[in-house]
Amino acid sequence: MSDWSLVYEDFSPDRERVREALCTLGNGYFATRGSAPEAEADDIHYPGTYIAGGYNRLKTDIAGRVVENEDLVNFPNWLPLTFRPKGGRWFSLQAVDILSYRQELDLKHGLLFRRIRFKDSHGRRTTLTSRRFVHVGDHHLAGLETTITAENWSGPISIRSALDGRVLNAGVARYQALNSKHLEPHEARTINDDSMYLLLETNQSKLRVAEAARTQFFHEGSLIDIKRESTEEPGFIAQKCTTEITEGQALTVEKIVALHTSRDHAMSECGLAARVAMSRASRFSSLLATHSQRWERLWQRCDIVLDGSHRSQLILRLHIFHLLQTVSPNSIDLDVGVPARGWHGEAYRGHIFWDELFIFPFLNLRIPDITRSLLRYRYRRLEQARWNAQSAGFKGAMYPWQSGSDGREESQLLHLNPQSGRWTTDNSSLQRHVNAAIAYNAWQYYQVTGDWEFLSFSGAEMILEIARFYSSLTTYNPRQGRYEILGVMGPDEYHDRYPRAEAPGLNNNAYTNIMTVWVLCRALEVLDLLTSDSRRELRETLNISKDEIALWEDITHKMVVPFHEGTIISQFDGYDQLEELDWERYQKKYKNIQRLDRILEAEGDTPNRYKVSKQADVLMLFYLFSSDELRKLFRQLGYSFKYETIPHNIKYYLKRTSHGSSLSQVVHAWVAARSDREKAWMLFQESLHVDFLDSQSGTTAEGIHLGAMAGTVDLIQRAHTGLETRGEILYLNPCLPSELKRLSMFLYYRGHSLDLSITRQQLDVCSRTGRAPAIKVGFKNKRYRLKPGNTIRLEL
Amino acid sequence: MSDWSLVYEDFSPDRERVREALCTLGNGYFATRGSAPEAEADDIHYPGTYIAGGYNRLKTDIAGRVVENEDLVNFPNWLPLTFRPKGGRWFSLQAVDILSYRQELDLKHGLLFRRIRFKDSHGRRTTLTSRRFVHVGDHHLAGLETTITAENWSGPISIRSALDGRVLNAGVARYQALNSKHLEPHEARTINDDSMYLLLETNQSKLRVAEAARTQFFHEGSLIDIKRESTEEPGFIAQKCTTEITEGQALTVEKIVALHTSRDHAMSECGLAARVAMSRASRFSSLLATHSQRWERLWQRCDIVLDGSHRSQLILRLHIFHLLQTVSPNSIDLDVGVPARGWHGEAYRGHIFWDELFIFPFLNLRIPDITRSLLRYRYRRLEQARWNAQSAGFKGAMYPWQSGSDGREESQLLHLNPQSGRWTTDNSSLQRHVNAAIAYNAWQYYQVTGDWEFLSFSGAEMILEIARFYSSLTTYNPRQGRYEILGVMGPDEYHDRYPRAEAPGLNNNAYTNIMTVWVLCRALEVLDLLTSDSRRELRETLNISKDEIALWEDITHKMVVPFHEGTIISQFDGYDQLEELDWERYQKKYKNIQRLDRILEAEGDTPNRYKVSKQADVLMLFYLFSSDELRKLFRQLGYSFKYETIPHNIKYYLKRTSHGSSLSQVVHAWVAARSDREKAWMLFQESLHVDFLDSQSGTTAEGIHLGAMAGTVDLIQRAHTGLETRGEILYLNPCLPSELKRLSMFLYYRGHSLDLSITRQQLDVCSRTGRAPAIKVGFKNKRYRLKPGNTIRLEL
Repeated sequence: MSDWSLVYEDFSPDRERVREALCTLGNGYFATRGSAPEAEADDIHYPGTYIAGGYNRLKTDIAGRVVENEDLVNFPNWLPLTFRPKGGRWFSLQAVDILSYRQELDLKHGLLFRRIRFKDSHGRRTTLTSRRFVHVGDHHLAGLETTITAENWSGPISIRSALDGRVLNAGVARYQALNSKHLEPHEARTINDDSMYLLLETNQSKLRVAEAARTQFFHEGSLIDIKRESTEEPGFIAQKCTTEITEGQALTVEKIVALHTSRDHAMSECGLAARVAMSRASRFSSLLATHSQRWERLWQRCDIVLDGSHRSQLILRLHIFHLLQTVSPNSIDLDVGVPARGWHGEAYRGHIFWDELFIFPFLNLRIPDITRSLLRYRYRRLEQARWNAQSAGFKGAMYPWQSGSDGREESQLLHLNPQSGRWTTDNSSLQRHVNAAIAYNAWQYYQVTGDWEFLSFSGAEMILEIARFYSSLTTYNPRQGRYEILGVMGPDEYHDRYPRAEAPGLNNNAYTNIMTVWVLCRALEVLDLLTSDSRRELRETLNISKDEIALWEDITHKMVVPFHEGTIISQFDGYDQLEELDWERYQKKYKNIQRLDRILEAEGDTPNRYKVSKQADVLMLFYLFSSDELRKLFRQLGYSFKYETIPHNIKYYLKRTSHGSSLSQVVHAWVAARSDREKAWMLFQESLHVDFLDSQSGTTAEGIHLGAMAGTVDLIQRAHTGLETRGEILYLNPCLPSELKRLSMFLYYRGHSLDLSITRQQLDVCSRTGRAPAIKVGFKNKRYRLKPGNTIRLEL
Repeated sequence: MSDWSLVYEDFSPDRERVREALCTLGNGYFATRGSAPEAEADDIHYPGTYIAGGYNRLKTDIAGRVVENEDLVNFPNWLPLTFRPKGGRWFSLQAVDILSYRQELDLKHGLLFRRIRFKDSHGRRTTLTSRRFVHVGDHHLAGLETTITAENWSGPISIRSALDGRVLNAGVARYQALNSKHLEPHEARTINDDSMYLLLETNQSKLRVAEAARTQFFHEGSLIDIKRESTEEPGFIAQKCTTEITEGQALTVEKIVALHTSRDHAMSECGLAARVAMSRASRFSSLLATHSQRWERLWQRCDIVLDGSHRSQLILRLHIFHLLQTVSPNSIDLDVGVPARGWHGEAYRGHIFWDELFIFPFLNLRIPDITRSLLRYRYRRLEQARWNAQSAGFKGAMYPWQSGSDGREESQLLHLNPQSGRWTTDNSSLQRHVNAAIAYNAWQYYQVTGDWEFLSFSGAEMILEIARFYSSLTTYNPRQGRYEILGVMGPDEYHDRYPRAEAPGLNNNAYTNIMTVWVLCRALEVLDLLTSDSRRELRETLNISKDEIALWEDITHKMVVPFHEGTIISQFDGYDQLEELDWERYQKKYKNIQRLDRILEAEGDTPNRYKVSKQADVLMLFYLFSSDELRKLFRQLGYSFKYETIPHNIKYYLKRTSHGSSLSQVVHAWVAARSDREKAWMLFQESLHVDFLDSQSGTTAEGIHLGAMAGTVDLIQRAHTGLETRGEILYLNPCLPSELKRLSMFLYYRGHSLDLSITRQQLDVCSRTGRAPAIKVGFKNKRYRLKPGNTIRLEL
């Protein structure tokens, strides 16, 4: 196992082990558009790549309500390619003896390699190797190269290459009641001797998807002519090609596919675009060369090098690889957000939650053009967010907890507990804190880039409208002389109401309250940053009165934050009144208690009764803000904040958390990074393995946990470097885990390309040559000016 | 006539005069998406708004070749609304006596008002008023308010409101051989009592277009219930509504329409999006209020105030209005470019030429987010431009002379001369200088904004690939020891080959050669500006070798520029060998000789034989560059350049130009601004009237001349202020025409909001408050630092 590839090799494999390998992370890249390898669970079921944008009404109407469903649609599959010797069956794992198996995911070049040696029932031994990728430089192109070597036999051989649009969304068992078929066949035809074409349309959103494929055959590098027969049926087209193979000979098949949808730019019609792109595409090897070169370049910007732990290094790169599979330079210009499970699995139906909070910091500091594009995804849905707020009786813009095609709330109203088989009401859409994540990201993007145009023309508007929403969410409590926020949910989804309460919602979720204050502070700062005309324009357009600004100002000084036991920030009002859970008993009884909510519900109980969290809630504050910034916020609110507040709270909540969300360990590792290094490293290791070992028992097959993956990367990037971008200054304050000797990475900041290198003794920040104005680097109460071409070296 | 509205009023109009008024500029706004009023030539033919993106093969195949056609498609028309008293005919201008007529285009608020008093054949006198707009803040919405007042009659009245998708592209007579029908009906239905819905699809590009309309009736402000009947036919739906009207009563009809296409963002399906938007839309008056407010705000950024000439002020505003009709904040995020005729008429089929060269300077300095978006339109077509170059045997990226949906060359191969009725070959695609315009714009955008992200992630790549194209276009002439460019056309389309030459193309077009040098200089500068990693990334991706850079460097010192008569820059090699035209004879014989090419061709002659230009070619250099910059370029090439070179060349070419292009006068006015103020003002006045008076005899009806309109604005903005953005400095060097007392405008530059005010004695540059870093202002060899909140006052 190198630091750059995931390899599985087995010289006496049984069928089940191979089947398992086929489903592992090293294989399961169903990445969409412009990323890398694709998966193939076996020769029958090929999960395709995904497209977002359509949704369909649920066919089954549970509890008399129409629940909406599905922003995620499978791409028609371009992979199908199989073969058979004359008289044999089409190749299938089920029907052969597997002699050896090797599979390798090359992260550095975005290439999936597989080799399988097998013997069929006639004793024919054959080696099948394949390499595949989706081009990272041209997201319309994909390539598959298959080589068939006849080891001990000769004779006629048929190869069948197909495009299959009969794909289903059937990747998540508990969604089986939902409509799984989203594509209607439109056209399937042969273009010319070696090419075919498939056109489909999603049945609700009417998005068209076109694929054109060219299949060519080579022997010792030379193109060979081959007999072909076409089969066309609705949503499916195949070419059956027949030739001769002789003992020891290798037959190579190249399949080059172009994929376009009707929402692509710079084209007339997507079918024409796919056919033209396919006809212009060069051969597999030269496409692979440019694809690999682009990946190498992405890594030059995006790699994070850990000196000290090979395994962590590999998994970290796997996570970065997955981030770039989901959002890459190819995402720029597409109207896409960051789905919670990437494009990898079907869980959450491709919906967009708050995961970008964990993902943007990585992208901002490397390829901010991507985050700009992702922020525009939110900006385009601002009008709908205003509508959401207005419909719920609020002002400003209220982004939904689950966002899809048009930005309305897509959260389900009912939720299936597979443990009890019961459908329970789902109040997760009361998580108003998603808005703070969006404002936070818009602000951080500006901090990293200093992009005035973005701030003036869209960023400020989003931040102000979100601020306004939060201010309308607060109510003034004259008894306390403070503002409060009633009836919401925090990030911890175990708590959606008070025990025995009829109505859902909790009061004064500390995270939401403090984020509200932070957002309002930024809104006031934004107004101050803008030029007077932009400020006036925005105030006029949004109709922001002086009174409203005065209200915001007031809230930033008088928001309530609940405390108990002195320094413990209460997750919400009355948290301290909840019962303690008998953790030991549940641990003993159920072993894995990550999904304590399902366990308790199945027992007729509810986590609402207990001091127990699914994931970081109060502790999110320590993840997002430095102690400096938190101190400032608390003091402004008239609360004392000591450094000890942090370890006290960490200790308190860490032992009351089940880590039922994949995000939990990351955040806890983060907040412990400075107070308890050993614990932090252990939690980091756990979070590294969430998907790598599928430690959440099977949820990886439903899609990777992108937020958690990004979180581990961000943990190294920010928690261990102490990186902060605030007030036009790049702050650093390294704190290396004892397991690491050195940490190096590239950072982009305000036109500077920085090389950051940290050892336990020393911090180097080198700005490569260029012409950007000098930046300020903050370290231990000092500020340093850094010009392009210069290096700052600091002793730690 | 105020400075803000175009009014036509007539108290004893005849039908023809009204019909003419209906077709004038004050009415003819077929603006697309997010702009203002729409036109209605009469009650039968309603030109719709346009959508770009589809193209169709020409049905008639002229001269045995397939010529491609049509990137422009009419939107289904949302305007149809008519009425009739019981027993009468549907209202038609043809069938009534017109008693008075008033029409007003309110530029400040983007509103078209019309009032017509008439008497029908039964002696019934009626007043019909209407107001209409397409919302500039929400480009999906449009509103039409019609009030019918029965002056001397009572009785039942029917009103018919429709959505009509049976529109044709029939606006240009000489295109009649081309396919004019681009929309296929898909669905037409009544949604509920007051609403209806129409869905169509373009027949080639398969773009879907959906419209949903709500028609409501009001009497004295109260909604009234009305009897309705629906008619549906393919591509058309109407509601016939019947009520009673009594003498003196006014019946108001509000029609609110939502328009979506399948390429819109942030939606699921365009039909659903249109229906939802329509159902949420508020009433006419409140939509109008927000629309007007947005327009006022656009004007705060975009107005240019001339103190001294009311008429020039009005037309200048009309031009700015048209610019903002074509590209506005609504264009951001759409995959659109700037079509030569706006979205106003069908000439050139919506194709994109080089007009952005004249339009960007205005937008860059006010709303650079728009230019960024327009530059992305080009960037998305970079791959196709590479393909174009490769197919023509060149390197790098070659943008087409006429660009459409997918960025391939859309120039016609044949051209109809209406004067002779003959089809002649059209070599206009040899105008390689369009590439320089794109590079120039990308560079200027960066100069104004300092947008590093744009430069690093797309701008630099375009500039480098264009530079590479130009370098591959040059050949080294060892005899001269200089590089040359053979076989191209300059901006002057009268010259496409040497007299009696078989092959098209001219050698060493001075404009193209010098632009090549300029582009190569910028490419070298861009490489220098980038950080070392961005530079390496780009050089690796584009495979730019040291040798190639050395070649660029060499060309920037050894490009040939032809001269004759000492200081006259020859338009191309051998220009001085051409014959002088007998201008007087032609002027006498034909009166208007702007289209001398058509006249000569009809006579069996060709402009290729003469020293005669359709428009500025050499003189473009003086439009684009200050004398400082030109001097630098020429000296670098080893040619002498004196200040007198400018007036000599202006004088020489001005008298050899027929102004056959609408751009010509602008450029000539520009270059004369400093040498011959009177001549400059006269030419400026002429160019102001190109569309206002349709001085090119009928071409305005085929679409406004957007480049010329923008040019007049830019003339005031840059020629009379001496504004230049170069080397991170904002240069000013005012030179007011004697007709003006004061010139004031807003400018955006590198995060600063500037108020510029110029009198003959004084220049004030005030930077409004804000937080951007100080900028440098250059004036007469001096540089001044300007911080937000400060003003620079300079004596002239």
